[in-house]
Amino acid sequence: MSVPVLKALLNIDLPIVQAPMAGVQGSALAVAVSNTGALGSLPCAMLDLDGIRRELTAMRAQTEKPFNVNFFCHAPPVIDDARETAWRRALAPYFEEFGVDPAAIAAATRRAFDDAAADILADFKPPVVSFHFGLPSPELIARVRAWGAKILSSATTVEEARWLEAHGVDAVIAQGVEAGGHRGMFLTDDISTQLTTLALVPQVVKAVSVPVIAAGGIADASGVRAAIDLGASGVQVGTSYLLCTEATTSALHRAALASDAGRHTALTNLFTGRPARAIVNRLMRELRPMSSLPPAFPLAASAIAPLKAKAESRGVTDCSSMWAGQNTSGCREIPAADLTRALAEGLS
Amino acid sequence: MSVPVLKALLNIDLPIVQAPMAGVQGSALAVAVSNTGALGSLPCAMLDLDGIRRELTAMRAQTEKPFNVNFFCHAPPVIDDARETAWRRALAPYFEEFGVDPAAIAAATRRAFDDAAADILADFKPPVVSFHFGLPSPELIARVRAWGAKILSSATTVEEARWLEAHGVDAVIAQGVEAGGHRGMFLTDDISTQLTTLALVPQVVKAVSVPVIAAGGIADASGVRAAIDLGASGVQVGTSYLLCTEATTSALHRAALASDAGRHTALTNLFTGRPARAIVNRLMRELRPMSSLPPAFPLAASAIAPLKAKAESRGVTDCSSMWAGQNTSGCREIPAADLTRALAEGLS
Repeated sequence: MSVPVLKALLNIDLPIVQAPMAGVQGSALAVAVSNTGALGSLPCAMLDLDGIRRELTAMRAQTEKPFNVNFFCHAPPVIDDARETAWRRALAPYFEEFGVDPAAIAAATRRAFDDAAADILADFKPPVVSFHFGLPSPELIARVRAWGAKILSSATTVEEARWLEAHGVDAVIAQGVEAGGHRGMFLTDDISTQLTTLALVPQVVKAVSVPVIAAGGIADASGVRAAIDLGASGVQVGTSYLLCTEATTSALHRAALASDAGRHTALTNLFTGRPARAIVNRLMRELRPMSSLPPAFPLAASAIAPLKAKAESRGVTDCSSMWAGQNTSGCREIPAADLTRALAEGLS
Repeated sequence: MSVPVLKALLNIDLPIVQAPMAGVQGSALAVAVSNTGALGSLPCAMLDLDGIRRELTAMRAQTEKPFNVNFFCHAPPVIDDARETAWRRALAPYFEEFGVDPAAIAAATRRAFDDAAADILADFKPPVVSFHFGLPSPELIARVRAWGAKILSSATTVEEARWLEAHGVDAVIAQGVEAGGHRGMFLTDDISTQLTTLALVPQVVKAVSVPVIAAGGIADASGVRAAIDLGASGVQVGTSYLLCTEATTSALHRAALASDAGRHTALTNLFTGRPARAIVNRLMRELRPMSSLPPAFPLAASAIAPLKAKAESRGVTDCSSMWAGQNTSGCREIPAADLTRALAEGLS
């Protein structure tokens, strides 16, 4: 359909976006992808301001090609003492088992896009900025527009796609429910509204006039070809990059992805407070993946972080958020450039 | 990939299976589809033996092309008085509101394939027989094989596909979670294992050597093309046929499908006891779509049937099982032959 439109819009040769994956990649993966002519993405949700500056410096030093910088844009959470108490009570047996001192838990943060981040971006002028969980304020959007950046955001329903178009995005990422990591959902918190890529993409393509980037379950060239057939102008691929040499995916997460167990994922809000797709593990089995217990995003992550660290130090992933999509069949321990070129065969 | 293999196997010109949809179609839809060169399907789950004979007589009278006859093959349920009581208690407010006498509820049946059904089939020798919820006994399979019928069944996971291949099916229907109606799942009852079509099809294609028929979310020619790209040898399409002139879909169900509300579906076990995808309605909202309340399949349907009838007589679908997949964008009030030919454009 409008594949050439998206390529021109983002000034890329290959309409393949490497999905931003906070916690399992930095600039190295993004650089490798951008240098093939596709669009590498730098996730900033788990970086502090120094980290953002450091990673952007690394990007600019290593590629002259376009790249994407990704931010979450959630509203700051309101702390609810009762929910915190209930959550800590539910986790108490795990604190005990893994030797976590609940009194010593530090607050986990997930950066929402703000003026301080925009100040840094203005120094680097990234050509593409993508958002998850909707869009930041019009003022912040205007700041990003000031240096000519193109703006992307994720839609998980037809309604969200229409909202994003009305609010001026240059392209919509249609994120099917099979995608790994956080659902971009922002107009609803009802996961029954979440459509699969095959159902979502054609409906979004009909509903909006901006280019649509298909995300979720696309693991290889055949998946890329299928997405383009559905009317997408490009694709976003995450899970298949998780084993790439440039990814910082942990050894335990890599082992899970390569195992049969890695093929069983579920949406869970246990790790951060928002629904995200992860490999099913002990915490998800025992507390149920979608629970009313966790406090609001990202507060739930505070108590999870030390549990994850302590359990992983014993070699177990009982408390680890091992993000993955439903289709791990494209995961290979290969350089990201090789994966990108293999995916690109689906474009021809 | 192996599209020609499937066409030869089923002796059809168009590798498109019209999904069997008990309750919303009979022989008329199947005849119309088979006469285009695709594979029409006659669902038998809600027919008694006379009905099966009558519909097969109609099929044979109106088409000389191959067609498919579909059966459920669930184990007979064990009645659990405690669950029946809890279920009736949960429905009591609806009985009251809609004027249903709980003492007068008749047992709902969903026919499982058995010797009596095989006796009738033997008279008509349908060229294809498909099953849902696994496969019947080896003895029953042998009876169907005796007249040379090809056998299909649905897999919702890679494990189920491997199991079906090991048990001798001629082709596997890979049913993605976006599909409407009952999940074919039979090795698990955990709905978190259910993969989307885009994730399931390529993994099943890699796992088995028999042809794979993709089902779920395929609404138009672009969806057909996408499925073939993913390695499927053919497709099964249901939802898009629901508005066809030959379907017996009720006026209320048709109106829901044509409305915005029809785009919100969910898996629910409320209507029969097994997970199935339906348009979200009042009963699903109030009792939650996936519930521990309903008794085992198909016992839950007994109390639902009169509620549905009484509520529909008042023009409301509060208690109706309005089966639909996640992609209703292909629903049109057109003859099934026209829809089939439009879908077939995705094959070229």
